[in-house]
Amino acid sequence: MSNYTVYGMSSSGNCYKVRLLLEQLTIPYRWIEIDTRSGATRSSEFLARNPNGRVPLLELAREQYLAESDAILFYLAEGTAFWPQDRRERAEVLQWMFFEQYSHEPFIAVARFICAFLPAQDPRRSELPRLHERGAQALAVMERHLQRRSFLVAERYSIADIALYAYTHAAGEGGFDLAAYPAIGAWLRRVEAQPRYVRMPSAPTPPA
Amino acid sequence: MSNYTVYGMSSSGNCYKVRLLLEQLTIPYRWIEIDTRSGATRSSEFLARNPNGRVPLLELAREQYLAESDAILFYLAEGTAFWPQDRRERAEVLQWMFFEQYSHEPFIAVARFICAFLPAQDPRRSELPRLHERGAQALAVMERHLQRRSFLVAERYSIADIALYAYTHAAGEGGFDLAAYPAIGAWLRRVEAQPRYVRMPSAPTPPA
Repeated sequence: MSNYTVYGMSSSGNCYKVRLLLEQLTIPYRWIEIDTRSGATRSSEFLARNPNGRVPLLELAREQYLAESDAILFYLAEGTAFWPQDRRERAEVLQWMFFEQYSHEPFIAVARFICAFLPAQDPRRSELPRLHERGAQALAVMERHLQRRSFLVAERYSIADIALYAYTHAAGEGGFDLAAYPAIGAWLRRVEAQPRYVRMPSAPTPPA
Repeated sequence: MSNYTVYGMSSSGNCYKVRLLLEQLTIPYRWIEIDTRSGATRSSEFLARNPNGRVPLLELAREQYLAESDAILFYLAEGTAFWPQDRRERAEVLQWMFFEQYSHEPFIAVARFICAFLPAQDPRRSELPRLHERGAQALAVMERHLQRRSFLVAERYSIADIALYAYTHAAGEGGFDLAAYPAIGAWLRRVEAQPRYVRMPSAPTPPA
């Protein structure tokens, strides 16, 4: 039995990654809902747990915390089928996870945040053309890779797939047209067919 | 003996990380200099090696490539003293490496690029106020953490330190005042005192 506690916002893709893996590993956990829009991650109480002020945050044991969604995935996956036994394959899983955090999430997740979480007239909508351009570049890299593969690394479902599924499958909420990426679409269906798959909760209705 | 080839731009912090670790591990390698400003990473030849069009890129073996600086560090460090034996410490190393790529590099490295690699009148200088604000947040997180520690994880030098040293020590070239962060300064000196430390080449003179 674990005593894991996850501090997370259910509609955040980064937080959903952790929930999906915990469910697929059948590890029990407690989930504490944090609404990042309310400033809850900037409170002194939260900053004492994660000085970088972000969710998800995993409490591994009493007052022992781990931040960064993809580091949490790594921690939970080591020793399981979600993390390869081969050295090069392990590095390739991390390659895709760093790609996700650097070349994918800052464009696709941020576009979704602006479109689905902010009011329709928010000035940040001016960022969307650049986000769509850069996000499309990331999707093109994935599409090309997945045209001849079932999963991102070694033809097996791994935490690389979880890391990239989270915001890719919700890219439509950020104004991306996933119909233009058929290999990604087929891969999304393969991820969704995995045992104990759970859906990500929808984005909350944005304020008017 | 290895047959590693690194495709890299010497004055890039991300590329320097790989060079520093290879030197410290005394692993022989071939370095192929790539000037990203010339479009060399967008050629069809390079994109066949790394579809994401970035350096550093490690050729592990003939036509087997690994991208993403921090995934390359992981690959090279596994099984060495630069990668912890403890599960939680391994996850903490990755936590800092994901912090670096998401919350640090996009601000501190980009500010350095604008200040040191682009002409003095480049319009991208308008990005600097936001980059300095966000970069200072990242430096503050590091400063607080290092006030009571010698290294980022487990009081031992690891690839987390290499990953964060690369752009932190050059932050002055991006207009950050490192004198405001004394714990970071002391940590930089500890990194520089490690065996087989090599300096990063200076940024090239920007065009007028």
